Amino acid sequence: MAVKKLKVIPLGGLGEIGKNMLLLEYDKDIIIIDAGLMFPEEDMLGVDMVIPDITYLLENKDKVRGIIITHGHEDHIGALPFVLPKINVPIYSTKLTNGLITVKLKERKLLAEANLNIVTPGETFSLGRFKIEFFAVNHSIPDAVGLIIQTPVGVVVHSGDFKVDYTPVNGKPTDLTRLAQLANQGVLLLMSDSTYVEQTGYTGSEKVVGQSLGRFFGEAQGRVIVATFASHISRIQQVIDAAVAHDRRLFVIGHSMNNNVKMAAKLGYLNIPEGVIGQNWELTKLPLNKIIVITAGTQGEPTSTLVKMANRDPAQIKVVPGDTIIMSATPIPGNETMINKTIDNLFRQGARVLYGRIADVHVHGHGGQEELKMMLAMTRPQFFVPIHGEYRHLALHAKLAESFGIAKENIFALEDGQILELGLDKGRVAGKLPSGNVYVDGLGVGDIDHVILRDRWLLSQDGVVAIIVAVDKNTGKIVGHPDIVSRGFVDLEESEDMIELAKGEIVKAVGRSANHTAELGFIHTKIKEVAGKFFYKQTKRRPMILPIAIEV
Amino acid sequence: MAVKKLKVIPLGGLGEIGKNMLLLEYDKDIIIIDAGLMFPEEDMLGVDMVIPDITYLLENKDKVRGIIITHGHEDHIGALPFVLPKINVPIYSTKLTNGLITVKLKERKLLAEANLNIVTPGETFSLGRFKIEFFAVNHSIPDAVGLIIQTPVGVVVHSGDFKVDYTPVNGKPTDLTRLAQLANQGVLLLMSDSTYVEQTGYTGSEKVVGQSLGRFFGEAQGRVIVATFASHISRIQQVIDAAVAHDRRLFVIGHSMNNNVKMAAKLGYLNIPEGVIGQNWELTKLPLNKIIVITAGTQGEPTSTLVKMANRDPAQIKVVPGDTIIMSATPIPGNETMINKTIDNLFRQGARVLYGRIADVHVHGHGGQEELKMMLAMTRPQFFVPIHGEYRHLALHAKLAESFGIAKENIFALEDGQILELGLDKGRVAGKLPSGNVYVDGLGVGDIDHVILRDRWLLSQDGVVAIIVAVDKNTGKIVGHPDIVSRGFVDLEESEDMIELAKGEIVKAVGRSANHTAELGFIHTKIKEVAGKFFYKQTKRRPMILPIAIEV
Repeated sequence: MAVKKLKVIPLGGLGEIGKNMLLLEYDKDIIIIDAGLMFPEEDMLGVDMVIPDITYLLENKDKVRGIIITHGHEDHIGALPFVLPKINVPIYSTKLTNGLITVKLKERKLLAEANLNIVTPGETFSLGRFKIEFFAVNHSIPDAVGLIIQTPVGVVVHSGDFKVDYTPVNGKPTDLTRLAQLANQGVLLLMSDSTYVEQTGYTGSEKVVGQSLGRFFGEAQGRVIVATFASHISRIQQVIDAAVAHDRRLFVIGHSMNNNVKMAAKLGYLNIPEGVIGQNWELTKLPLNKIIVITAGTQGEPTSTLVKMANRDPAQIKVVPGDTIIMSATPIPGNETMINKTIDNLFRQGARVLYGRIADVHVHGHGGQEELKMMLAMTRPQFFVPIHGEYRHLALHAKLAESFGIAKENIFALEDGQILELGLDKGRVAGKLPSGNVYVDGLGVGDIDHVILRDRWLLSQDGVVAIIVAVDKNTGKIVGHPDIVSRGFVDLEESEDMIELAKGEIVKAVGRSANHTAELGFIHTKIKEVAGKFFYKQTKRRPMILPIAIEV
Repeated sequence: MAVKKLKVIPLGGLGEIGKNMLLLEYDKDIIIIDAGLMFPEEDMLGVDMVIPDITYLLENKDKVRGIIITHGHEDHIGALPFVLPKINVPIYSTKLTNGLITVKLKERKLLAEANLNIVTPGETFSLGRFKIEFFAVNHSIPDAVGLIIQTPVGVVVHSGDFKVDYTPVNGKPTDLTRLAQLANQGVLLLMSDSTYVEQTGYTGSEKVVGQSLGRFFGEAQGRVIVATFASHISRIQQVIDAAVAHDRRLFVIGHSMNNNVKMAAKLGYLNIPEGVIGQNWELTKLPLNKIIVITAGTQGEPTSTLVKMANRDPAQIKVVPGDTIIMSATPIPGNETMINKTIDNLFRQGARVLYGRIADVHVHGHGGQEELKMMLAMTRPQFFVPIHGEYRHLALHAKLAESFGIAKENIFALEDGQILELGLDKGRVAGKLPSGNVYVDGLGVGDIDHVILRDRWLLSQDGVVAIIVAVDKNTGKIVGHPDIVSRGFVDLEESEDMIELAKGEIVKAVGRSANHTAELGFIHTKIKEVAGKFFYKQTKRRPMILPIAIEV
């Protein structure tokens, strides 16, 4: 029997950052790798989050064998609450990842129906014709894995999000040995993380941050406040270690940070020596130089403890001169303004603020060019697909693979929705699936379209003007005066004269045209046209005009 | 007679980036240093630009002796068209800066009334009790200067925007010799550029970029397209030089780039050898490897040639594989998303794209920490005020000055509006002037307030719902059915049922309360409350509700 083709279909995360989801399909089997969300970009006004379009999965529901999650970050697990109610297949992940998924599904009351399976690196399980093995990788969360997938066409390696850290704080270094063994059998396809392909050299070890923290803790005369990602268990461990070394008490502040610390400690991912965690009442009692606070809010989130402190919220810890505040995180693109404002406001209160641009208080979780080459060298694949990244990252990673010696025709810088068909010795892009952004806004999933977003954008620029006219249903003439209500356009009190003039213009225009049949649609168009022109001439602004003609 | 105090009052550019403006006041004399604009931040919806609040200047009009401009960037000259019509005082600047101001005022038809004066570095002029001398500094535009200002209290040095470039492409290195001479006389106050205080070491020389350009031009098999700031005359010169060296023809594309190249050539700031500039018709005739295009659009501006090319605008040059595109600029904070999308789209068309993160194709115009220390060392001031920067920059620069040996009580990290009073040996902050942002939106200057911005923000998040009810003026009861019109909220067709339900809720609520006096205001409040709650329950969205009750 001839070998069928293997299909590789990214539904998210290729050509953009976030909402990672990738399918492998062979004959009657589909497996899903990751199910993440994306935080909205600036032009996705009012949108809460963005998830992948799973139309193709719904159409092929009976083929879907399971969802494999490489690690517990939102851009890899965040879409699960939206996917599971529609395709309730088993989920496979490592212990910590499973813990984070459990918390998420519980909040959404979806845990009872979920089929969750814990897999240990090295262990193998089968989903249809796919045989899957996890291998440990280093990332900015413990228990992250890459995947070795035996398929009828050949071995597929999926790197997950990875870097190579020989001295990680949790777990083991990326399992290069296992990969090297694989290469001897021959790897059909490598899919590898492109996020930091722009960076030359190697990404630093997590241990580097521990050394910095130790130094800054030593220098601090007063309180130390460390902000990091609530999921960054290794970073939290290093803060705990530094607290112990400097004989300070650690206070964990904030909902998400507390939840994660508890969960990670329970699952054995955090080692918290007796007595290091302080009780809330001690926070105001202990000398300042005995206190370390750890909290989230590194992205300038308005509801976070750190941002509230920066904004002098009286319900929070009051920042005082002598405080050292360490922002131990990378700004996620799009958040820079909010983060900078937070740092500025902390400085304004006299704190010493240490952040990525001026101090070694963070290393990120993705490999630089040398680590990407290492992954290529260890697996020596026949085909290469760069994954995780905006298009320039994919293009640069493709170039890197080419310079490494992989044949140009075997490298595919795919984008979301593209279908790559791989045979034993040839690959080709064989079409494109629907794969746009599905917007989640409040309770609505997928009901926000480009028309609504465009309207929100127009409203945001120059506001709205509603113009109400009563029309005599027999004569088609305006009865009385138009009413005008506006928001976000001009100061209404100061613009009273202009509004009165506008009413006159509208009456004149609609009146003039009322000699033929009074059609509400026609009156609407006329009002929009006349008012739009009039206001633009007066203000050079283009508010959205809502013409409302009522028959009386 | 006792010496009066010298007042230093920043009206813009301290605690934020942009709209630079700073006043020096002594007795009956005020001088203004720079009059810049700021581009709106993301929460300033629909705003075109932001300028300083000059209320204080208008109240003290008779004291204002002149405006001194340190260089020709928008954040230093952009507010002139708004300031001059209100305070028409003489303007002093170098030749190129004067050229850029002339272009700007001409466009706004303000040139005829303007009193423009060209000053050469080294030359001295007096404004009231102030004696001002320009000294040359290096920046990302030629003819930039710092200021040495003799005041009755002592010598004030204002660095302007500066770095120290010993091998600049235009002009001379920053005039350290002149500053060193000054120090012997004693400098009362140094105000120095803080923009790049986060960066250790020195900023590279403009020549570095020339070397990179040369290398990439040499490697390019096809067309080369260079994007840079239209005002970056030195960069343009280096592109011209590289075009000559590699025997390529240069095509200048775009309005602003063309204007600036012409103006700079005319004033002698660009050296364009005969025959290097190509004619438009040649662009489609010459072999691709004979073509260099220079254009603006490095910030992802939607109307720029580069962005149109990235988006495959058929009216523009079609990008083809083999093209090399060089983004020779720093992303201005806030523009990253648009810039990244532009780079992505150029990669998608098969071009090689070189940009700051992966190649040495840009150096910026501000000194790093070592250059800032050099400025402190050369002037050895008694008082220090860090200028140009968000608050963290000012705080870090203040720290740097302290570590340099300036007494802590003589360092003032001021913010916009704060009044610093300097005597011979003591300084203090003596109050605060109104100094907020003045928004320019269309023809309106200063009429946009926080209410309008908040409304625009609300509109942008969940759209608007206008609810119109006709009310019988005698009974206060609703006549007929309410009308509901919405934009940016939900898909109206799909939500027909919900809208009908909403109408029912409104009739019920308003009807119920109509037994007492029918007050339109009361009905408005009721509609807002009922509809807001109803829609939130149905959608978890909070559209802006515009209740409109009409008496019939």
